[in-house]
Amino acid sequence: MEKKSATEISTLGEFGLIDRLTSRLKRRNATTIMGAGDDAAVIDLGDEVMLLTTDMMTEGIDFDLSYFPLKHLGYKAIVRGVNDILAMNARPEQVVVALGISAKITVEALDALYEGMEFACNELGVDIVGGDTTASMNGLVISVTATGRAKREDVVYRSGAREHDLICITSNLGAAYMGLHLLEREKRVLKGVDNPEPQFDGYGYLLERYLKPRAKANVLEALRNEGIRPTSMIDLSDGLASDLRQICRASECGARIYLERIPIAQQTTQLAEEMHIDPVIAALNGGEDHELLFTVPLEMQEKVMQLGLVDVIGHITRPEAGVILVTPDGEGIALKAQAFDR
Amino acid sequence: MEKKSATEISTLGEFGLIDRLTSRLKRRNATTIMGAGDDAAVIDLGDEVMLLTTDMMTEGIDFDLSYFPLKHLGYKAIVRGVNDILAMNARPEQVVVALGISAKITVEALDALYEGMEFACNELGVDIVGGDTTASMNGLVISVTATGRAKREDVVYRSGAREHDLICITSNLGAAYMGLHLLEREKRVLKGVDNPEPQFDGYGYLLERYLKPRAKANVLEALRNEGIRPTSMIDLSDGLASDLRQICRASECGARIYLERIPIAQQTTQLAEEMHIDPVIAALNGGEDHELLFTVPLEMQEKVMQLGLVDVIGHITRPEAGVILVTPDGEGIALKAQAFDR
Repeated sequence: MEKKSATEISTLGEFGLIDRLTSRLKRRNATTIMGAGDDAAVIDLGDEVMLLTTDMMTEGIDFDLSYFPLKHLGYKAIVRGVNDILAMNARPEQVVVALGISAKITVEALDALYEGMEFACNELGVDIVGGDTTASMNGLVISVTATGRAKREDVVYRSGAREHDLICITSNLGAAYMGLHLLEREKRVLKGVDNPEPQFDGYGYLLERYLKPRAKANVLEALRNEGIRPTSMIDLSDGLASDLRQICRASECGARIYLERIPIAQQTTQLAEEMHIDPVIAALNGGEDHELLFTVPLEMQEKVMQLGLVDVIGHITRPEAGVILVTPDGEGIALKAQAFDR
Repeated sequence: MEKKSATEISTLGEFGLIDRLTSRLKRRNATTIMGAGDDAAVIDLGDEVMLLTTDMMTEGIDFDLSYFPLKHLGYKAIVRGVNDILAMNARPEQVVVALGISAKITVEALDALYEGMEFACNELGVDIVGGDTTASMNGLVISVTATGRAKREDVVYRSGAREHDLICITSNLGAAYMGLHLLEREKRVLKGVDNPEPQFDGYGYLLERYLKPRAKANVLEALRNEGIRPTSMIDLSDGLASDLRQICRASECGARIYLERIPIAQQTTQLAEEMHIDPVIAALNGGEDHELLFTVPLEMQEKVMQLGLVDVIGHITRPEAGVILVTPDGEGIALKAQAFDR
C-alpha cells in the first residue's frame, strides 16, 4: 500500500510555504492588479486602486494574555493590519475584524479589546466596518483585514528597488523584541508568586514598542510633502534581515547595510546585555518592529536625511553581490533570515 | 476594593454581542457607506460600490478534522465568505485568506485545503489575492475576507423588506444540519474501532450539503435576467428563524411563514426521525444552510415561481404582527431564534 507523504511545514524554508501556497493561484478578474506577494493586494478602481491585506494573531503564539492588556492588543491588531496598507504608500480606510473567542473571554474583556481597536482607528482615521465572531476551543484569535486607497501611480511595491538606492528605516530596531523578552522573563520569575510585582523600571520604552507599536503614517506624509517617492517599501514585521531579503528578492537586487548605522535604542542594548542577548541579533532578527523599511533614489539623500524621521542604513547593489551586513571593521557578512517560524 | 465585573458573553442574548461591539463604532471616512450590520460592508467607489466581509472558522467549533476532508473545508470556507457578497446582490471578486496553522497540519494537508479553495474560486470566478499564516497552539483557524462589486443601486440590504413582500428561499432547509449530525453520530459509534467504516448509505445528499455547500450565484443571475430585484436579502447561516428575524429587525417589519411551504428534503426527514430530532427544528434552527433568504415585491410572485429555483414560504407583515410560523392547522407560533451560540 502506498503511504501518503506527510511533510512538516518547517522543512519548506523561509519563503517556501508562501511560495507553495500562492504559486498555483490563478487570476480570474481583470480588476486584480496584484495578488499575493506584497504587503497588500492591489485591486483596480479606475484612476485609483484599492489595497487589501489580512493579518491573523493567535493566543500563545502572537500574544500572551497573562501580560498583554486587551486594550493594547486591540490597538496593536489594528496597527498591524493598517501597517501593510501604509507599506504600499496608501491611505488606510476600512478594516473588518474576525474574532475567535474562547470561553474565558468576558464581555468586559471584549469591550477592552474593542476600545483599543477604536483608539487606533481614531488615530489612523480608519473605520471598522464589519466583523465576525465565532467560538474558539483554545484561545483568542484575532484576524484583521484592512483596505486602503491610492492613486495607481502612487503605489509602492516591494519590487521597485534599484541599484544605488538608499535603504531607510523609520526607527531604531530590536526594541519590541527586547520588550517581549522582558515580559517573558518577569512571567517566568514571578510564576506562582502571590500578588506579583514585575520589575519593568527603566524599560518602559521597550514595553511600549512591543505592546503598542505606532503606525508611521506621519513619515509617509512627510515624504509626500517633500516630493520623495520610495522606490520599494515593506512593513518591518519579521526582522530587518528577513524583510530586506524580501525586498531584494522581489526587486532582484542585492544590498549592503552598515552595522554602525543601524540605530539601536540605549534601553535595547542595556537589557540585551543584562539578558546575554546580542543586541545586533535583536535588531536584525527580532521582528515585530512594525516600522517601515524602504528605498529611495540616491539623489534624495539630502532631502531624506533632513526630514529627521528616517535613518539611512545602506544601499542597494547588483543582485550577485548578495545581501550583506558590513561590520565596523569593514568585513561583509551575508545576511541570513532567522530560522523559519511562520 | 471594587471588584471588576466579569460578564459571560452568553448573557448578552442573540443580537447583544454584535450590537455591543458595533454600536460604538464611528465612521471617519466618507467612503464608508455602510458599516457593520449587514452581510457585508459597503464602500463607495463612485458609480460602483465595493463590498467587504470577513468570516472565521475554528477547529472544534466550526469543523472537526477527524471527518471533514481538508479539500472540502477549503471549498466551504470560500463559499461561506463569498455567500455574504452574493447576499448583497454583488459580484464576488477577490478573497484574502488568513490561516492559523497547528503543528499537526502538514504541507500536504495545506495543499489539499488550498486545492479546495481554488476549486471554489474557479467555480465562482474569484481570485485569492493574498493571505497570512501564523502558527496556532491549538487547532486550525481559517479566516476568509471577501470583496465584491456592484452598481450602487443594485445593492440589496437586509433592511429593504416591505409589507406584503414575498419571502423566498433558494433550497430545502435542515439538510446540512442533519449531515453534521450524521457525521457526529458515526464518529461516536466508531470511536476506538480499528479501520472504522462509517455508514452513510442513502444519506450522501446530507453530507454534501454540510461538507460542500454550493453558492447560489445562479439564482441571483436568474433573478437579474428576469428583472426581479430582491427588496432584502441575507445569507442563511444561522438558521431560518434567526436569519428571518434579522431581516425583520433591520426592515422594521413582521413576517408570516407557512410550515407546509418550507421545503425539507426526504433524506433530512428520514434521518431526523431515525435520530429522534424534529425535522422542523432542523429546518428552522439548524443553520449552515448557506442558501439565500430574500424578499421580493408581491407583484413578482408569478415571475419568481416560474424560475423553478426558489420556494416562496410566506410574506412580510407589519412589525406589530411579529415573526410568525403558521402551522398546517392555522395556528401561529412566534418564531424565536435558537439559544445564542455566537
